[in-house]
Amino acid sequence: MAVAPPVAIIMGSQSDWATMRHAAETLDALGVPHETRIVSAHRTPDRLVAFAKGARDAGFKVVIAGAGGAAHLPGMTAAMTPLPVFGVPVESKALSGQDSLLSIVQMPAGIPVGTLAIGRAGAVNAALLAAAVLALTDGPLADRLDAWRAAQSASVAERPVSEAP
Amino acid sequence: MAVAPPVAIIMGSQSDWATMRHAAETLDALGVPHETRIVSAHRTPDRLVAFAKGARDAGFKVVIAGAGGAAHLPGMTAAMTPLPVFGVPVESKALSGQDSLLSIVQMPAGIPVGTLAIGRAGAVNAALLAAAVLALTDGPLADRLDAWRAAQSASVAERPVSEAP
Amino acid sequence: MAVAPPVAIIMGSQSDWATMRHAAETLDALGVPHETRIVSAHRTPDRLVAFAKGARDAGFKVVIAGAGGAAHLPGMTAAMTPLPVFGVPVESKALSGQDSLLSIVQMPAGIPVGTLAIGRAGAVNAALLAAAVLALTDGPLADRLDAWRAAQSASVAERPVSEAP
Amino acid sequence: MAVAPPVAIIMGSQSDWATMRHAAETLDALGVPHETRIVSAHRTPDRLVAFAKGARDAGFKVVIAGAGGAAHLPGMTAAMTPLPVFGVPVESKALSGQDSLLSIVQMPAGIPVGTLAIGRAGAVNAALLAAAVLALTDGPLADRLDAWRAAQSASVAERPVSEAP
Amino acid sequence: MAVAPPVAIIMGSQSDWATMRHAAETLDALGVPHETRIVSAHRTPDRLVAFAKGARDAGFKVVIAGAGGAAHLPGMTAAMTPLPVFGVPVESKALSGQDSLLSIVQMPAGIPVGTLAIGRAGAVNAALLAAAVLALTDGPLADRLDAWRAAQSASVAERPVSEAP
Amino acid sequence: MAVAPPVAIIMGSQSDWATMRHAAETLDALGVPHETRIVSAHRTPDRLVAFAKGARDAGFKVVIAGAGGAAHLPGMTAAMTPLPVFGVPVESKALSGQDSLLSIVQMPAGIPVGTLAIGRAGAVNAALLAAAVLALTDGPLADRLDAWRAAQSASVAERPVSEAP
Amino acid sequence: MAVAPPVAIIMGSQSDWATMRHAAETLDALGVPHETRIVSAHRTPDRLVAFAKGARDAGFKVVIAGAGGAAHLPGMTAAMTPLPVFGVPVESKALSGQDSLLSIVQMPAGIPVGTLAIGRAGAVNAALLAAAVLALTDGPLADRLDAWRAAQSASVAERPVSEAP
Amino acid sequence: MAVAPPVAIIMGSQSDWATMRHAAETLDALGVPHETRIVSAHRTPDRLVAFAKGARDAGFKVVIAGAGGAAHLPGMTAAMTPLPVFGVPVESKALSGQDSLLSIVQMPAGIPVGTLAIGRAGAVNAALLAAAVLALTDGPLADRLDAWRAAQSASVAERPVSEAP
Repeated sequence: MAVAPPVAIIMGSQSDWATMRHAAETLDALGVPHETRIVSAHRTPDRLVAFAKGARDAGFKVVIAGAGGAAHLPGMTAAMTPLPVFGVPVESKALSGQDSLLSIVQMPAGIPVGTLAIGRAGAVNAALLAAAVLALTDGPLADRLDAWRAAQSASVAERPVSEAP
Repeated sequence: MAVAPPVAIIMGSQSDWATMRHAAETLDALGVPHETRIVSAHRTPDRLVAFAKGARDAGFKVVIAGAGGAAHLPGMTAAMTPLPVFGVPVESKALSGQDSLLSIVQMPAGIPVGTLAIGRAGAVNAALLAAAVLALTDGPLADRLDAWRAAQSASVAERPVSEAP
Repeated sequence: MAVAPPVAIIMGSQSDWATMRHAAETLDALGVPHETRIVSAHRTPDRLVAFAKGARDAGFKVVIAGAGGAAHLPGMTAAMTPLPVFGVPVESKALSGQDSLLSIVQMPAGIPVGTLAIGRAGAVNAALLAAAVLALTDGPLADRLDAWRAAQSASVAERPVSEAP
Repeated sequence: MAVAPPVAIIMGSQSDWATMRHAAETLDALGVPHETRIVSAHRTPDRLVAFAKGARDAGFKVVIAGAGGAAHLPGMTAAMTPLPVFGVPVESKALSGQDSLLSIVQMPAGIPVGTLAIGRAGAVNAALLAAAVLALTDGPLADRLDAWRAAQSASVAERPVSEAP
Repeated sequence: MAVAPPVAIIMGSQSDWATMRHAAETLDALGVPHETRIVSAHRTPDRLVAFAKGARDAGFKVVIAGAGGAAHLPGMTAAMTPLPVFGVPVESKALSGQDSLLSIVQMPAGIPVGTLAIGRAGAVNAALLAAAVLALTDGPLADRLDAWRAAQSASVAERPVSEAP
Repeated sequence: MAVAPPVAIIMGSQSDWATMRHAAETLDALGVPHETRIVSAHRTPDRLVAFAKGARDAGFKVVIAGAGGAAHLPGMTAAMTPLPVFGVPVESKALSGQDSLLSIVQMPAGIPVGTLAIGRAGAVNAALLAAAVLALTDGPLADRLDAWRAAQSASVAERPVSEAP
Repeated sequence: MAVAPPVAIIMGSQSDWATMRHAAETLDALGVPHETRIVSAHRTPDRLVAFAKGARDAGFKVVIAGAGGAAHLPGMTAAMTPLPVFGVPVESKALSGQDSLLSIVQMPAGIPVGTLAIGRAGAVNAALLAAAVLALTDGPLADRLDAWRAAQSASVAERPVSEAP
Repeated sequence: MAVAPPVAIIMGSQSDWATMRHAAETLDALGVPHETRIVSAHRTPDRLVAFAKGARDAGFKVVIAGAGGAAHLPGMTAAMTPLPVFGVPVESKALSGQDSLLSIVQMPAGIPVGTLAIGRAGAVNAALLAAAVLALTDGPLADRLDAWRAAQSASVAERPVSEAP
């Protein structure tokens, strides 16, 4: 059986992909293999159990889970795997992701979810955090991450540019 | 095997009992048999799966689920049983149950949780709502519920009483 | 006199129909007869009293009530009928339904309203919850609801699809 | 039949009296007769309908209504009387009156409730606002209200006093 | 000197007119004369003082004040006139009027502002509340207000209409 | 006439002194003369106008204004003086100072109030900010402020100390 | 070495310029020289340290810092310079600047940031507050600021103008 | 030079220790060496820079950072180290940690902080998450973590116990 890549990106529905693709793209930029799956805690609980319970044995090292509203996917995954789980609150319609954020971050003592910002920034950062974890024991990745960060710093212009002359 | 009583009251931890006991006491007052269990979505996910998937076959008709913080118990139960699930947001320490409320009520389309108020009032009302459901096909219970409501109305004094003369 | 269908869908104004139609459509999909009415707690209080007090005798089993802002319709209906009442907070303009949600869910002990999510998801779920209640004593409906849930689970793709190649 | 005093102070429960007594005391200080009643929108809807529909004919001029949580009393009263209704959000346990405030103030166009601050300050101010309304056509009351306001201004010390030397 | 009409509608800036015009139009519909002025608490404090201190002597009976953000106009007006002041929180850009609402409604004990809903509904209702106050001693206006309310009730359709066939 | 000290500390009521005394004590520690006054925007609007309009001519350089709830004192002072005004949101009872904060910080373009944190920290920091402003042209004060900041940094222990052995 | 102008406007990213340009334009209108720089606390921490530690010696008198989301730029700048720092919360996408506001204003005792409103109004007001500080020792600027304020007051029309005839 | 233990626990002040000690105790229970330091982003920015820039070379693998209010410590640390940083929002006085949470979690794209719940639960979970990261390449720790999780699950009683007989 093929070994899983180090990072799994799971999300509650197809509509979350517009947010979570930024995690995938960031991992691509860092050269970190990953797999993306739709796992709905509410509509496919069996898939959730199978995925979460089998994630470590499958070879995954880190799980990135994105969901919106009453977002139970990150926390329920963390309940069933000892792997580090990073949660991305997807922006919801009425409450702009405030429900997503609280549903993910306010986990009770015992089951941790490292939570990132609401929306795209959170997806990018979940990927960077996953890479930082993997880089602890992967020198070349550490170098690539350092380079990515250095390039990011270098890209910040000294002065703002007005949009029109 | 003994048939389950019509109502299951489940909660995420022992500490939720201070809130959820009001559901049990209200059902007692209405003569509705019930069973109380601690089922932690996060710390005992297997127990959650077993309970939720088996609830209908066990004979339960309605599930009352109370939890606090990133409260996943009501929604995950609803994901795995076709029975009506009523959720009670337990008051949390830092955010006073706002996290509990949003984690329970903001379920995505497809998996409903009928959510009651934060804290004791919600626990009482979950019991009343469960009774109202059962009363649809239980005439004597309907009569008891009518009487309970009438007594409640009758107990409201006409004028407020000052605490001290 | 014709007997009422099992579910009444009431709403505070014509503008709530854009949300509440999703409850009607979901009940249609499940083969649950229903009736839709505009009942404004504030502008037509007499109609509210007449409806709520007469709902059980008319033959209704469950009431779904949707309203926005200072949403009093679900709670006032629950005050005047022993039937189960499920509330749908309609998204309001300035506060995005936060006012609707709190006005519906924070009922005092004694008068329950099972509250669903803000907006469309809440309307769909109110219908599903009503169906779950009716399915307790309607085997064919239970089968249809099971099938609906199974189809929903089956419809969740394994992998997200990017929008453009 | 005895004519009602100009101001009715109604509240949803005995527990609201701790807040609403400040409205009564303020009216006492201004020499404005008033009557206090417990009228629960949820537990005594008939009493609500009777009170609200009969308030004008009974001789009341202004209604002060206090309630907490999903507070429907002020708005439902306003739905059934053309008299000016002033609402006092009573501080609730979990949400500190934020639910009370939004349930009272966010009334839809067509049915106004003039809403005051959460808690004691709101109760005092509801009385002052009622007095201001009555003072429009009651010269002696206008004089007493002016004097009350002047005394209030005069009572503000020029400099703060430390609690201990 | 010409006597002022019974109602003054003041607002903090020209941009508030989009909201406050609904107060003016509602008063027009009820046949209540009124005057509209821009009075900025922050940019024209002298105008505010002059207006508020002189409002009663000018002949005004009720003041409707609309403002947004850190909205000080209603409260400061109430500080300088014994007339009833009704406040309309204008919807603000970033915080959707939550700042406007709290800045207006949370007045300390001693200086009341009867606060209406955020935005258009609040403006309409401020006019209705002003009319209700004036109607206490103006029989024909009371009749017109009754008729307006009856027409409003009558205008609520029995059933929702779908937008397209 | 005696010239005013450089800093005026004003507050809406005696009860605000428990918070604002920390501003006074911090200025004392920095050797910055100051004057404290109770100026209620709502209960003593004339005092407010007199103070604010005369503050610059009296010789004040900076105004620190603390108030709670619908806190209008800082903004109204800023409306009537060109001096820098720093606002301190005093913690309110029901809403914990969220109302105070928004009422002070959300000023419209044209009238600035530099707002500090809710409560004691805000009072201390208003004093430090006032000192920083004065230190721009007062070398010895700049030295004292530098020393105060250095001492603050030096006082931070390297390691936390457990409360009990 | 050229001496710095009195005001530095720094911001966390190019995208903040759409907001912060209003600070620059307001300073231009008042004839206050200023410099604009992008200084990202998170992406260019070295630049932040260099700027903040060197700001006083470079000749700056006041720093205006704008940032959004978890906005650390104003507070970290204030941690490393004794100059007055004024913070502008830039409106964020999901939370509309509520995160920006709290991240900037809720500074602990010891390190003050004078915080302005969210968005454009805050940027304008930061410039006005900086000007007010500089005007304490710059008579001509004080005159220009007085004139600006007087013109602002004069520009407020007496009556609102409807948009269409 | 002695090599640092794998986990650094840093916090903004001595008062945060009451929360952060739970992280230390949890790491102790799992046999994970750690070091605790007070590093104030605002009062000791040089210490922050030295710590964060040197953390990787010192031998740390993971940083746990706790802070309250406008909490900048976690984000600024993440800005200066490529190590994984986990943030703990300490409960603040006025806003109950809502400010702490938003200041930590809403980081912009590019600099991740994996954020845990407000208060004690967050501190415990930060330790568990750090252990999960280290366990990826430390078999014995993985076993201890598995055992800890199993013991936690086993400790959940089947039924709630009432407090008094």
